Amino acid sequence: MLGAVDPVVADLVDTAAEFTSGGKMLRPTFCHAGWLLAGGDPHDDRIAKAGAAFEWLQGSALVHDDLMDGSDTRRGRPSVHRDYESRHRAVDAIGDAAQYGARVAILLGDLMLAWADEHLRRAAPDARTAALWDACKSEVVSGQYLDVLAQTSDHLDVDAARHVIRFKTSKYTVERPLHVGAALAGGDDELLTALTAVALPLGEAFQLRDDVLGVFGDPAATGKPSGDDLREGKRTVLVARTAQVHGDARVLALLGTADGVDELRELIVSSGALARVEDDIDRLVAQTRTAIDALGPRGRTILGPLVDAATRRVR
Amino acid sequence: MLGAVDPVVADLVDTAAEFTSGGKMLRPTFCHAGWLLAGGDPHDDRIAKAGAAFEWLQGSALVHDDLMDGSDTRRGRPSVHRDYESRHRAVDAIGDAAQYGARVAILLGDLMLAWADEHLRRAAPDARTAALWDACKSEVVSGQYLDVLAQTSDHLDVDAARHVIRFKTSKYTVERPLHVGAALAGGDDELLTALTAVALPLGEAFQLRDDVLGVFGDPAATGKPSGDDLREGKRTVLVARTAQVHGDARVLALLGTADGVDELRELIVSSGALARVEDDIDRLVAQTRTAIDALGPRGRTILGPLVDAATRRVR
Repeated sequence: MLGAVDPVVADLVDTAAEFTSGGKMLRPTFCHAGWLLAGGDPHDDRIAKAGAAFEWLQGSALVHDDLMDGSDTRRGRPSVHRDYESRHRAVDAIGDAAQYGARVAILLGDLMLAWADEHLRRAAPDARTAALWDACKSEVVSGQYLDVLAQTSDHLDVDAARHVIRFKTSKYTVERPLHVGAALAGGDDELLTALTAVALPLGEAFQLRDDVLGVFGDPAATGKPSGDDLREGKRTVLVARTAQVHGDARVLALLGTADGVDELRELIVSSGALARVEDDIDRLVAQTRTAIDALGPRGRTILGPLVDAATRRVR
Repeated sequence: MLGAVDPVVADLVDTAAEFTSGGKMLRPTFCHAGWLLAGGDPHDDRIAKAGAAFEWLQGSALVHDDLMDGSDTRRGRPSVHRDYESRHRAVDAIGDAAQYGARVAILLGDLMLAWADEHLRRAAPDARTAALWDACKSEVVSGQYLDVLAQTSDHLDVDAARHVIRFKTSKYTVERPLHVGAALAGGDDELLTALTAVALPLGEAFQLRDDVLGVFGDPAATGKPSGDDLREGKRTVLVARTAQVHGDARVLALLGTADGVDELRELIVSSGALARVEDDIDRLVAQTRTAIDALGPRGRTILGPLVDAATRRVR
């Protein structure tokens, strides 16, 4: 399809393919799990197409996220806007290199979103499944917007951070992929409701684990410099719990600065915020397992390993 | 749907609705024309939904375009990123106001793209129509990328500018809306081919007219400051034809600067570039009319007025 436009655009396809490789493929995995739980044939390639749609959607979100956050790297490689900024400088091209990088990142994110829809369409979804997919796309952006808004406040709030998680992670990463996979295989509304009961605590546990890794994780395992979330000023539950002890002003003075990372990390530990978040994760994982039990032995077989993969400590 | 996320997000919906109002509605109009030419019922609301999908797609493209080009205004109002930058400053919020504006613009553009797909889906397209819609989304972004790439070159090239027009305007604004409308009504491949023969010259004529208005147009009619295309450094056919007479170096020294607008405008006239582009438009309109004649009397009735509306001089 794109080859028909211009050979030059093929370069974008390569960048996109490289960028999307090396991820954890969580959303296709949950989509596949939903499909199996609804009795879908494991060898039917409709589910592979739907899974690919989620990977392109995620790729699109990451390219735009990195630009919005000014992140230099992604999975140990330069982020797309930085990559194209460097290419512009390397050939001493006309115009502003940073603006060029930003333009390419906006367009490539848009293009990946179009490809996501194209893959989903090739999975031949019925109208109900397509509506779940559409809901997923709107919800993730709305969650990101709530996140961006939260970052403009002078108050660090645990509930606000959890609200963002609900849309940005629980629904987007877990619930909707499970729903789309299950609906594609003809799963009924009762199954979708049962999957929601698994997805909401599991998604929150996954995000809290990711937040901990974003502060204390090994760069070799996370693909990002240690403490990057603090440098970027992310308003996580971890940070909000720290502010409950040390106050908004002290935490905000350190958050989003390169120099404040080490001190903030110490406050996160000494305040007990880290321990509380680890307790939260344990509680949410237990809730998840109870919800999985309601799905019976097949639920445990299919979803059990995913709970471990998404929430275990890897630092 | 969005109300379920958070009342705060409703604010984005208002912004989006306001932003998309006041446009020329060219794409829904062509989509409707394609539908009628394929024998679609004028009162069936499937075509209204498809038309709305094109308006949201265009809204998304404009929000991202304005950010990429650093444009301050759109249709006489602040562009989305500038609007949200001002709101951030007005309440003296935490963080960088310009970055906040950029973030909201990226997210709102993504959200409008999701809504575009949602509207198209509600028009209940068959697989062939959905594939034409997907092609449209990929092509417009690819065309924008070619445009961004062209802007990094130290050579102004008429053919390169026309190549960008083909994807960014002829296919996106005219051909694909006609195709989607016609295919949705069950039009055959022969009709789609005949519509392409109309769309390619008509789209090019429309873009050349738009380029002329971008340099010489009345701000009250165009909604943009006069000469904005020159200030923003747009690589139009008009500018490339001027460079054929006065050389790349002289034109590039003026293009993309605020001070160079008046002199460059004089060069565009004195070089004969303006007159040549007006000749191009006349020739392309004549080609369009010949292609419309091949569609018979209904083709003339339905498409004839659109040719005038899209290409007439309004300055």
